[in-house]
Amino acid sequence: MLVKKAAEVPLQPVQEGIGIRWLLAGEDGVPNYAMRIIEIEPGVVFPPHHHPYEHEIYVLEGRGIVSGAEGEAVMEPGVVLYIAPDEVHGYRNEGEETLCFICVIPLPKKA
Amino acid sequence: MLVKKAAEVPLQPVQEGIGIRWLLAGEDGVPNYAMRIIEIEPGVVFPPHHHPYEHEIYVLEGRGIVSGAEGEAVMEPGVVLYIAPDEVHGYRNEGEETLCFICVIPLPKKA
Repeated sequence: MLVKKAAEVPLQPVQEGIGIRWLLAGEDGVPNYAMRIIEIEPGVVFPPHHHPYEHEIYVLEGRGIVSGAEGEAVMEPGVVLYIAPDEVHGYRNEGEETLCFICVIPLPKKA
Repeated sequence: MLVKKAAEVPLQPVQEGIGIRWLLAGEDGVPNYAMRIIEIEPGVVFPPHHHPYEHEIYVLEGRGIVSGAEGEAVMEPGVVLYIAPDEVHGYRNEGEETLCFICVIPLPKKA
């Protein structure tokens, strides 16, 4: 059993005002999928993008908007999102506190 | 994109005082892993057990104890746990509110 506190996992910068904590990743010995927290500061936009793997998301804190091919949805605590492989998606923080959400992705395959 | 509120996903009973919400499961079209919330009422024990797949856990609310082969650890908001395949584990709620945690497992393979 591996035990961590999320707040003690380093916040790695993605771009200005956006960071990621890799809570459980390949170096932890997890075999199939990685659990991360994404943190987006107030007013910051994570531009639309896509990739060939899915996201399973649970919003922990803050308030924002997720945009996808089919429209937009509110992100607030307790909201669950599934973004399919190759689906375009972006986020923006429309609140006054950090928008934090869990985002699980398949583990990157080893080269 | 699929959007849900966790509180609106039905709480399915597991045993007296323990329930599970399948936030994202096979019927949602997710391809690789399922995101669930486990809820354990105060004073309730989820007895030690094991299974051939892993857990990736993030504690949302409440206070409890997870027990594993190597000892015990506190479960409180922000705690992250990895329980490996076949590892014995159990939970008990030692707080005064419901112990709630996200628990991601590989998607059960279709028969």
